[in-house]
Amino acid sequence: MGCSATHAATAARILIAADLRGIDSHGVARLSGYVRLWEAKRVNATPDIRIVHQTPSTATIDGDAGLGLVVAPYAMQVAIDKAKVAGTGWVSVSNSNHFGIAGCHAMMALEHDMIGIAMTNASALVAPTFSIERMLGTNPIAVAIPAGEQQPFIADMATTTASNGKLEILQRKNADAPIGWVQDHKGTNTTDASILKAGGMLLPLGSDREHGSQKGYALGSIVDIFSAVLSGASYGPWVPPFPAYVPMPENMPGKGLGHFFGAMRIDAFRPAEEFKAHMDNWINRFRKAKPAPGHDKVLIPGDPERYAEKRRMQAGIPLPESIVDELKRMADKFALEW
Amino acid sequence: MGCSATHAATAARILIAADLRGIDSHGVARLSGYVRLWEAKRVNATPDIRIVHQTPSTATIDGDAGLGLVVAPYAMQVAIDKAKVAGTGWVSVSNSNHFGIAGCHAMMALEHDMIGIAMTNASALVAPTFSIERMLGTNPIAVAIPAGEQQPFIADMATTTASNGKLEILQRKNADAPIGWVQDHKGTNTTDASILKAGGMLLPLGSDREHGSQKGYALGSIVDIFSAVLSGASYGPWVPPFPAYVPMPENMPGKGLGHFFGAMRIDAFRPAEEFKAHMDNWINRFRKAKPAPGHDKVLIPGDPERYAEKRRMQAGIPLPESIVDELKRMADKFALEW
Repeated sequence: MGCSATHAATAARILIAADLRGIDSHGVARLSGYVRLWEAKRVNATPDIRIVHQTPSTATIDGDAGLGLVVAPYAMQVAIDKAKVAGTGWVSVSNSNHFGIAGCHAMMALEHDMIGIAMTNASALVAPTFSIERMLGTNPIAVAIPAGEQQPFIADMATTTASNGKLEILQRKNADAPIGWVQDHKGTNTTDASILKAGGMLLPLGSDREHGSQKGYALGSIVDIFSAVLSGASYGPWVPPFPAYVPMPENMPGKGLGHFFGAMRIDAFRPAEEFKAHMDNWINRFRKAKPAPGHDKVLIPGDPERYAEKRRMQAGIPLPESIVDELKRMADKFALEW
Repeated sequence: MGCSATHAATAARILIAADLRGIDSHGVARLSGYVRLWEAKRVNATPDIRIVHQTPSTATIDGDAGLGLVVAPYAMQVAIDKAKVAGTGWVSVSNSNHFGIAGCHAMMALEHDMIGIAMTNASALVAPTFSIERMLGTNPIAVAIPAGEQQPFIADMATTTASNGKLEILQRKNADAPIGWVQDHKGTNTTDASILKAGGMLLPLGSDREHGSQKGYALGSIVDIFSAVLSGASYGPWVPPFPAYVPMPENMPGKGLGHFFGAMRIDAFRPAEEFKAHMDNWINRFRKAKPAPGHDKVLIPGDPERYAEKRRMQAGIPLPESIVDELKRMADKFALEW
């Protein structure tokens, strides 16, 4: 596409990280989608990513319509650099695109003995509580916290009951979704995993009002506001859609997608070694929490992805044939060796 | 109890704010509980609240076992003062006690054109996903975001499917809880709203693994770590219990309860007037989201509490007779006029 070698390597690393961690919906399967956005002139392969405003602990960044996979690590690095001097760093980003898995960006903070935070808005697929209109994306939040001898605590979650990726897995298997994941265009609960194609919507974490969906709705809204209203990106139902063939929303109030990043230096609060020893204690204690019948242990956020990564580093990453074919077609298109 | 007039007024203001906002579980109904903690020498009525470590954008505060109602506004003010200079301010607090409603502290940021964040850990009532042990409190998160002509966006939520307060309301009515709020000591789903008295547990937001309870578990954990592992307070199952008659946990790894506060100056990211105009646009658009059948409108986080406050400012705050009697007994105890 004309990306610099450095940008291409960064983007590839993040896509492969998703595949390794078992988040197939956000790995190389997305590559052709990014290329189509570039063909539609919605992705700039040679962006001039720049800080447009800053204070000692904050920055606002314009991603210049670059790949989110490239804009996000740049912005997270700015947050880390701010934290080195001011204790914490907080960066809101406009004019960006889909940034891959949030966890990967948050994890950049770990080697600096910092807590990392990453979130992004996304095109609207989610209905607020009491609504039947798509108003929010699956708007994920990731938080990475270093430990000592233990593996780090890494939460990476859509603010919906189920991510769109989980729904796609059910679609491929022709399987039903549990009640509480989606509703149809009239707001009726359904188990149809393909209902999004028929005007359906994902539900906020909590599923319905009785089970706290107003909290998932609020969390998704906070991600939207921190990522886009703070930076000058588009928000709510105006976020640009990922598929290049879907027309852009009318009257967009900002530029592109928005992200938000944070880095907090541990020793801005207490000595890092002390904190990490207590994190080990925290993790050990939670690992020993009494398991429910039918379960042999309690997991720590990040465990499922760590298990997937260990397995796939040895056995390789299984790719569906359709994805392999797509990658081959792209290799042809760009005259690359296969 | 010997609190200074200023501290007493601050504590009273926060309790009454909870009652006005319709959060009866956190209002004057708690007053006798605080007094019992003071009698048990777990609350220090004349605390020397102090910053024990700081950087330009952070502070760690020791609450000296003061009332959380007094320690929290002090800490939030430090966050706001830091934000004035560094763009943002972040404060982790140890050695504190129950701080009332989180939203009230986050809202302190609004008049400064800042986003306010408040969270706290609490004594363990919640089982992690796949567990039947109480490991986390209801660990609330509050985020207050200023708008222009619109009322501010104010999210204030326990990271459980339902707060303990909601459960107490059902207990008083002798009503059933929906499935998904609680489990019994064996991990079986139940509608028994009094099950916590029989060793039961609250469930994380999401209720079960199929509906994303691992996300509620992760959110509650993040609150616990930011509030207590970062500050040096007690965490997880070691958080001191609110009822003074419950013995303190053994081998506590830190001091008292922990809180975490944040303040972000809007104009550290973009001009405040610009941001607030876009927040008005955001709120207006979400208010106009197509309502589901049977609902006349979509709410914005903060609306239910605003409606309650408007109602109660006119009609007064209804108090159950048992609470009135308790207040009278306390007036007698401290030789106050009734």
